Amino acid sequence: MRTLIVLAHPEAKSFNAQLKDVAVETLENAGHRVEVSDLYALGFDPVEGPEHFTEMKQPDWFSAQTEQRHAWEQGKTGADVRAEADKLERADFLLFQYPMWWFSMPAILKGWLDRVLVYGGLYTSRMRYDEGYFTGRRAMISVTTGGPEATFAHNGRNGDIDLLLWPMNFALHYMGYGVLPPFVAYGIEGGLKYSNPDSIPGRLQGYKEALAARLGALDEAEPLKFNGWDDWDEDGRLKPGVPGYSPFMRGQP
Amino acid sequence: MRTLIVLAHPEAKSFNAQLKDVAVETLENAGHRVEVSDLYALGFDPVEGPEHFTEMKQPDWFSAQTEQRHAWEQGKTGADVRAEADKLERADFLLFQYPMWWFSMPAILKGWLDRVLVYGGLYTSRMRYDEGYFTGRRAMISVTTGGPEATFAHNGRNGDIDLLLWPMNFALHYMGYGVLPPFVAYGIEGGLKYSNPDSIPGRLQGYKEALAARLGALDEAEPLKFNGWDDWDEDGRLKPGVPGYSPFMRGQP
Repeated sequence: MRTLIVLAHPEAKSFNAQLKDVAVETLENAGHRVEVSDLYALGFDPVEGPEHFTEMKQPDWFSAQTEQRHAWEQGKTGADVRAEADKLERADFLLFQYPMWWFSMPAILKGWLDRVLVYGGLYTSRMRYDEGYFTGRRAMISVTTGGPEATFAHNGRNGDIDLLLWPMNFALHYMGYGVLPPFVAYGIEGGLKYSNPDSIPGRLQGYKEALAARLGALDEAEPLKFNGWDDWDEDGRLKPGVPGYSPFMRGQP
Repeated sequence: MRTLIVLAHPEAKSFNAQLKDVAVETLENAGHRVEVSDLYALGFDPVEGPEHFTEMKQPDWFSAQTEQRHAWEQGKTGADVRAEADKLERADFLLFQYPMWWFSMPAILKGWLDRVLVYGGLYTSRMRYDEGYFTGRRAMISVTTGGPEATFAHNGRNGDIDLLLWPMNFALHYMGYGVLPPFVAYGIEGGLKYSNPDSIPGRLQGYKEALAARLGALDEAEPLKFNGWDDWDEDGRLKPGVPGYSPFMRGQP
């Protein structure tokens, strides 16, 4: 088994980085070979645009999908994206570790999705969802939030955590991954008080242990249910009588 | 009235740019002074990190919030962020124009949120929601999607559009803005076929006219309802009996 961990946090000693260390240790102890893409350390450029394509198919009109496909087919995908795609190619398990910023992910990780999930290479209009490129592999979010857990309930101030994580979880399903339930460490504020991994508050130590437990039992983990091609009609809506698994369906007839 | 339009698309002639042009023309005709932040043209750096802070409060431990607040208080906020914050300061109406990428926004716009919405300057733990800095001003999303409209229903393949737009809409509410209902142009694929604004398909022309109509009637627009401080208990959950306005509440008791 091989794992890729994608880490997106600007502070190398952050609690996010400490959770990444827990993941590396746990998975290596379980026999995984682990690679880490530390996006800040890599200086990953998250802005998709024409400067990443040396031989453009449509130099007068930049379309990200057109150029991603063209570059991939010509073997001209940029070295930074190619390196990430190669890591994905090698990984049976993909883990994201990041802080929730503005109810979403840091821009450096958002742009990793925009650039590394290559149209025409790793997905097409047909090669997605249960027909996705990475079918048979698994992926999981591990995220920290600033706000406390109660505020991420359906009636909480910040909104339902499952729905906030949908764009990333659904992107992973879109690519074919089996998506494991997310791991969420709530109420994590940045700050020097977490700087010594040996003296962090017990609550945070508990999160580390909980993540280790989760990752130590990967084989037993049940992926989240998503709908697939057979469930949708030609307009992209659920066929009558088909159960809808997304959190959007809650409370719907 | 003054408007700031924040545009995030890598192609200067894109349909998104054309919608921005429609917005500029409509609002100027209505007497607004309009500024545009074209994030790609500006080369805006969306990656929040230590390199943006010249005199750090905690040089050994980077915390975005700590440094944003410290720089703001010292008058040392970076010139690019300061310029955007000044534009926000001047604008009565804030309009975002961007394509939906991976069920979210392009990284360059995500990072504009991460960097420009300055902690300790434009919001604090108390100065947010209905007590937010921009209370009394209004904001609105105008977004294009690749997928067709049916797929963004609650039972659609891509998921409920209101929930997908929640992170941006709620961020705007968080900053104090009155948030107008989003304008969504569905089924917009990038490509040369849209390159001549005078010969684009009628369906797209219809979207331009619809956006112009929406922006031409701003005075009559009713903001979306959001909950505020008085609605939440000390744990950040809705108090009993208080109606919940977020789309997360759908179907909930």
